Amino acid sequence: MSRVGSQTFLYRQPPVVAAHASICGPKEGKGPLSAWFDEVLQDDLLGQKSWELAEMEMVRRCVQSALNAARITDEQAQAMLGGDLNNQIIASSFAARALGVPFIGLYGACSTFVQALVLGSALIDGGFLDNAVCVASSHYCTAERQFRFPLELGTQRPPQASWTATACGCALLERPEKPGGLRVTAGTVGRIIDLNVSDANHMGAAMAPAVFDCLAAHMADTGKTACDYDLIATGDLGWIGRDLLLELASAAGLELPPEKLIDCGASLFYQEQDAHAGGSGCGCVASVACGWLMKRLEAGDIQRLLLIGSGAMFSPTSSQQAQSVPGIAYAAAIERED
Amino acid sequence: MSRVGSQTFLYRQPPVVAAHASICGPKEGKGPLSAWFDEVLQDDLLGQKSWELAEMEMVRRCVQSALNAARITDEQAQAMLGGDLNNQIIASSFAARALGVPFIGLYGACSTFVQALVLGSALIDGGFLDNAVCVASSHYCTAERQFRFPLELGTQRPPQASWTATACGCALLERPEKPGGLRVTAGTVGRIIDLNVSDANHMGAAMAPAVFDCLAAHMADTGKTACDYDLIATGDLGWIGRDLLLELASAAGLELPPEKLIDCGASLFYQEQDAHAGGSGCGCVASVACGWLMKRLEAGDIQRLLLIGSGAMFSPTSSQQAQSVPGIAYAAAIERED
Repeated sequence: MSRVGSQTFLYRQPPVVAAHASICGPKEGKGPLSAWFDEVLQDDLLGQKSWELAEMEMVRRCVQSALNAARITDEQAQAMLGGDLNNQIIASSFAARALGVPFIGLYGACSTFVQALVLGSALIDGGFLDNAVCVASSHYCTAERQFRFPLELGTQRPPQASWTATACGCALLERPEKPGGLRVTAGTVGRIIDLNVSDANHMGAAMAPAVFDCLAAHMADTGKTACDYDLIATGDLGWIGRDLLLELASAAGLELPPEKLIDCGASLFYQEQDAHAGGSGCGCVASVACGWLMKRLEAGDIQRLLLIGSGAMFSPTSSQQAQSVPGIAYAAAIERED
Repeated sequence: MSRVGSQTFLYRQPPVVAAHASICGPKEGKGPLSAWFDEVLQDDLLGQKSWELAEMEMVRRCVQSALNAARITDEQAQAMLGGDLNNQIIASSFAARALGVPFIGLYGACSTFVQALVLGSALIDGGFLDNAVCVASSHYCTAERQFRFPLELGTQRPPQASWTATACGCALLERPEKPGGLRVTAGTVGRIIDLNVSDANHMGAAMAPAVFDCLAAHMADTGKTACDYDLIATGDLGWIGRDLLLELASAAGLELPPEKLIDCGASLFYQEQDAHAGGSGCGCVASVACGWLMKRLEAGDIQRLLLIGSGAMFSPTSSQQAQSVPGIAYAAAIERED
C-alpha cells in the first residue's frame, strides 16, 4: 500500500534530552552494559511484596532520578508519557499516581519508550508542553507469568525466545533554551505489519518486518540514508531478528551496513547468560538508550543515532485464538548538537 | 499538590471533526439512545469466531465508516490513535493492521477516546498531522471474562457494578480548511487520582475524584466555568458516580449545576435494562459522543460541550494484590462554530 503523506514528524525546534536515568535488574547487571546503568538492582523485588509492585517502584524511582538530575520537582513535570507490558499498564500508572504528574498512558509493547519520545517531542515542539517525562519498563517475572507461564512451572524456553529484561529507562525532554545537548530531531510513527508469524515465542521474526517498514518510511520521509547516522539501534529484535532485518533490507535494496546496526536486546546480555535470542521488553530499549546510547552521544563517541523501538502487539488471548503476532515500530532520531 | 503550569492544551487553530461514526451492540440498541447510533448490531459476534475477533471487526468497521463519511481513503488517513480494554489493546491494533494506518496505541481505560481526541488535536494543531483517526471500543463479553469472571460462570453482579458497553466510536479530526463545523478547542490531561477505593466493581466511586480533579484543572487553566458550556458530559461514572461528582464539586465550591451534567454511561441504558450502575467501557463514551452528542452539536441543540472521559487504571492482578483502583480523566472541549 502506498501511503499519502509522511509518517515522520520533523521537529522545528528539536526538544533537548535534559536528563536521563536507567535501572536494570541483577541478571542485566551481569551483562556487557552493566557499568553504563545508573543503578543495578541487587534484589528484583525492591523490597516489595510482589513483582508487580516492584516494577511500579522501579518506574517511580527511575523517573525520580531523571527529575533530580534535571533539577526539577514532581510539580514542575508537566506530563509523563509511558507504559509497560503489564495488563492495563499498571506499573506506569501506579508510578504516575505516586508522582502526581499528568499522565498519558501508551501501549506499543516493547516499542513504548520510543513511542513516548516521538509523542513527547511533538507535544513540546507543538507548544503544548515545556517538558515531558518519557518512560517505559519491564520486569522478567511480571511479564513471564502474564504472557507465557508462571515461573514456578519451570517451563522450558525455545532457543528463539527472548528474555524480558528487568529494566527501566526514563528521559526528560525539555523545550530547548540554549544551543547544545542531545536533541530529538525527528520521529516516525510505524504501521502494524504482520507477516503471519504465529510463534508467540519468536518476537524477532514477528517484529523485524515492522522495523523494516518503519525504517524505510523514515528514510523515504526524510531523504536520509544510513550514511546520515553513526548508529542505528533497534530494540528489541535480538540476534535472530537483527539478521532478519538485514535480510529484509538487502532484499529491498535498502542500504543498511551491518556495522552500523546494533540491537539493544542483543547488546544487553552475553550469549552465555542463557538469554536465548536476546533481551526484550519495554525496559530493554529504554534502559539501553538512556543508560548506554545517550551517554555515548554525550561523550561524542557518536553524533547521530536512529533509535527504532519495536513491539509485538499480541496478547495470550490472541495467541490462544490462533492469531498471528503483528508488529509495530517507532523511530526517533537523536542527535548531539555541539 | 499545587502544580506548576497548565494541564490544558489550547489549540490555536482548533481541529475540526470532519466525520464521526458509532456502532453499538444489541443491548445498547434497546436503550434510550438507540436511534442515534449509526449502526446497531443484531449479533454481538459479527459473524466472527470469538468475541475478541468481533471487537476487532467492530473497530475496523467503525473506522471505515468514519473515513467513508469524510471521503478519504485508508491511505490518506495519517494516523490512528486509539485503544480498548483488551489486554495489550489487541482490538485496536488488529484493526489498525487491517487498515494499514500508522498507529499510536493508547491506554487510558474507559477514558481512551477522549485521550485520543486530546492528543490527536495536539498533533494536528502542532503541524504534525493533517488528519487523525480517534477511536475506542469495548465489548461486554471480552471485558467481563478478562477483568472479572467468564460469563459462563453466571456470577452475580453487585448493584454498584457498571455494564461494559459493546460499542465503538470514531471521530476523524482534520486541520481546518474553512470556517464552521465542530471544533476541538481545548484538551486537558488528567492526573492519576486514588482515594483508596478498593472495590473493583465500583468504578463510579473510583473515577469520580479523577473526573473532579480534571474538571477543576480545566476550569483553572482556561478561566472558564460551567456557564461557558451548554453541557458537561462525563463518561463513564454511571448513576452513582455522577452523584459523587456533584458531591465533590459542592464540597469544593466548584459550580456544577446538575442540569448541565450528564453521564454517558447513565444515558446509554434504561434503568430497567438491568445495567446496574450504568454503562462503562472505552466504547461507551466514544459511541455516545460520536453517536449522540456530536449530532446534537451539529443540530445546534447545544453549542459548547465539555466531554470528560474517565478510566480506572487497575488490572485483575492489581486487585488480587489488594491494591486500590486509581482513576484518570481527560477533558476535551468541543464547540460548534457557525
